[in-house]
Amino acid sequence: MSKERIAIAGAGPVGSLLAVMLAKKGYKIDLFESRPDSRQTNIYQGKSINLALSDRGWLALQSIGLDKEIREHAIPMYCRVMHDKQGNLSTFPYGKDNQAIWSVSRAGINEQLIDIAEQLDNVSVHFEHRLADLNFDTVESEFNCKTGKAEFNSDLMIGADGAFSKVRRLAQELPGQRISHSLEYMPQSYMELSISANADGSHKMEKNALHIWPRGEFMLIALPNPDGSFTCTLFLDHEGELSFESLDNQEKVKAFFEDNFKDALPLLDDPINDFFSKRPSSLCLVHIYPWVFNNKVALIGDAAHAMVPFYGQGMNCGFEDCRVMDELESEYNGNWQQILPAYQTARKANGDAIIELAKRNFIEMSELSGDANFLLRKKIEAKFNERYPELWVPLYSMVTFSPQIPYEYALRTGDIQKQIMDEIMQIPNIAQCWQEEHIYDRLHTLAVAKLEAA
Amino acid sequence: MSKERIAIAGAGPVGSLLAVMLAKKGYKIDLFESRPDSRQTNIYQGKSINLALSDRGWLALQSIGLDKEIREHAIPMYCRVMHDKQGNLSTFPYGKDNQAIWSVSRAGINEQLIDIAEQLDNVSVHFEHRLADLNFDTVESEFNCKTGKAEFNSDLMIGADGAFSKVRRLAQELPGQRISHSLEYMPQSYMELSISANADGSHKMEKNALHIWPRGEFMLIALPNPDGSFTCTLFLDHEGELSFESLDNQEKVKAFFEDNFKDALPLLDDPINDFFSKRPSSLCLVHIYPWVFNNKVALIGDAAHAMVPFYGQGMNCGFEDCRVMDELESEYNGNWQQILPAYQTARKANGDAIIELAKRNFIEMSELSGDANFLLRKKIEAKFNERYPELWVPLYSMVTFSPQIPYEYALRTGDIQKQIMDEIMQIPNIAQCWQEEHIYDRLHTLAVAKLEAA
Repeated sequence: MSKERIAIAGAGPVGSLLAVMLAKKGYKIDLFESRPDSRQTNIYQGKSINLALSDRGWLALQSIGLDKEIREHAIPMYCRVMHDKQGNLSTFPYGKDNQAIWSVSRAGINEQLIDIAEQLDNVSVHFEHRLADLNFDTVESEFNCKTGKAEFNSDLMIGADGAFSKVRRLAQELPGQRISHSLEYMPQSYMELSISANADGSHKMEKNALHIWPRGEFMLIALPNPDGSFTCTLFLDHEGELSFESLDNQEKVKAFFEDNFKDALPLLDDPINDFFSKRPSSLCLVHIYPWVFNNKVALIGDAAHAMVPFYGQGMNCGFEDCRVMDELESEYNGNWQQILPAYQTARKANGDAIIELAKRNFIEMSELSGDANFLLRKKIEAKFNERYPELWVPLYSMVTFSPQIPYEYALRTGDIQKQIMDEIMQIPNIAQCWQEEHIYDRLHTLAVAKLEAA
Repeated sequence: MSKERIAIAGAGPVGSLLAVMLAKKGYKIDLFESRPDSRQTNIYQGKSINLALSDRGWLALQSIGLDKEIREHAIPMYCRVMHDKQGNLSTFPYGKDNQAIWSVSRAGINEQLIDIAEQLDNVSVHFEHRLADLNFDTVESEFNCKTGKAEFNSDLMIGADGAFSKVRRLAQELPGQRISHSLEYMPQSYMELSISANADGSHKMEKNALHIWPRGEFMLIALPNPDGSFTCTLFLDHEGELSFESLDNQEKVKAFFEDNFKDALPLLDDPINDFFSKRPSSLCLVHIYPWVFNNKVALIGDAAHAMVPFYGQGMNCGFEDCRVMDELESEYNGNWQQILPAYQTARKANGDAIIELAKRNFIEMSELSGDANFLLRKKIEAKFNERYPELWVPLYSMVTFSPQIPYEYALRTGDIQKQIMDEIMQIPNIAQCWQEEHIYDRLHTLAVAKLEAA
């Protein structure tokens, strides 16, 4: 029997990577993208936000030998640099000395992956094909394209078509199915701003860091690019007392930047005009169950589990979905009746967990990352982790640097760690005595009791 | 200026009641229903499940003088009667002596309300009109009907069209709006069974009670009808080890009833054949925000907040929505630009709260209602409530018998009461000493400290 013909809706980073993985196994792949080819128009029409590629993403790329190529255009960020209101900086490492998250441009990695997919004989990329309809029994699909309608027959369809997935929306309309789903808008929206390179092409701030201006209800962040620029993102309430909506004239915006981002203001490229030339983008969370329909159609990446960007895990999780599907393809010898249910079982709880973790992390980034108590807590955890690397991996490290630990386990364990650390932080004068031996004895006792019991 | 012309989608109990309320204020009402008129076909095509009308529902009916008519066909249920596996009965009151929830047939109350609506000159009821499209700016609506398409112009549209509301689904497709929504299937589905009257028209079990066969993961309940019959509902997992799906032959179903509902089996009307002649119905929860679009279209009842039936509050909450909208209409002198936002503000948090309470109550009904410890807890609360009726109203009473208490307050207060009662239940030998004075002193101290602080 010849291998199945697989349609993939959405040629974003996740769809493109999946196309490459499955094509390498000998499947005939049709990769559909509603947008024009950004490599030809030279205008990237997708999300321009920078992404932080970390170990889960790298592991997936490595599994098919793509990590080296991608790393050439990525910048390691070893620490967060926090900018306070007065412009004072403080630095905090993400993990151990050699551990980093890597700044990549979404457009760049996407185009690289499409290039690689196109070089494979058994991948056909169809740009400007917008999914219009899908038969979930026969896997016949209909697309709107330049020439009108185009129809395709496939054996499987994988929806990698993002947070507003058309495959998912068509699934939700299936009669008689029990499909639970949710789409939740966050109060915050975001807007991209930029900091150009110096005249000599160097970066205007520390290059190997993720910069954060944490201001409680809102924040600005900046990620470095190879050309010396930074891509900045302002996260702020969509509406309300202080919000994108309330900042409705030049003076208000100017005052807002002066009050809150004093040291960033002279570096940003005309932020006040930029602010009014753009519209803020929404952030939303998507849950759906099932992810697999008739064992012929499945969802992957944001289409299955759109999350907010505050843990830098959206693409990493999508890439991990691809790696797991690819591994299950081998494990079940190409039997998709088994692969798809096993994929759903392996990934659903992890998708839910990282959505929850990412949602919670807004508070950590925007509020706690400027809080002395919170930073002390992190220091104690780091020190304890050095001593007992098996017993205690800090939550951020589990999520970011430990692809062998499922997100779902990280979420559960992180909650127990939080209880334990709440107790440690109650110790009188903890800020003075945090390096003393008895602290780590107590921590060890609690960790053994609570973590090993769980 | 003449009063607005208001379209109401859905002539279920909530839509019909709202039509009567607003027509009495002088509005011109078009009430649309996708189904045929059940009064003419003599076959009720909607949900046939019995409902428990309680104080919130009565208050809404009373506000327009309809309570007496409805009460003529309702049966008061003063207590729960629990049936254990051996057929032993135990009885537990719902509230104080005179407090009851009232069994009504959904079909019956619905038809009564439509009769009342039709008697009003300014209400037009349009059966077999299925909403096809709605312009959220102009409030032009299009319906599929026997004669093809029908178009209507209105000033306002209220979607009272149930858990799978078409008005809501059309709103979700509006471009550029930030509409959060979720639809969650419960693991349990339900199936209706029946117990006929005795030959002399009397009831085969205690008439003035809600009967429960609590079995942990599943349960059977029965509500009395005026003709001597009971409407029974089996709640059971949809799929899984023991489920509607797993009970796939006569022997298994027979054994299931014999094992679990020994005393009900001889009373039920041919339950084994009945089981196979029906399909289980799903239960789902719906959240959406906003409930109001362009201040011209609003959602009400299940369309805004579908819940599970385990607190008996679905229709009561919908009726309360109507009463609040009607009161706001008076308060704002018919200014719908103010009425609709105020309605949303008043009701959204309460809708969320009762969805959550109803979801939690499955465990209470199916598991805890057969649990001695749980019943003891209820007895202590009832006794304390007698002494301090202002300080402590049990959660069930807040929800069911206290329409002046918002659901949202009941949920919050119930959580604090639970913490307090957890502490009381830890008192050694509580089962023996629960009537002693020191228990109520302790409870009083805790209640004053925790409830009054909140």
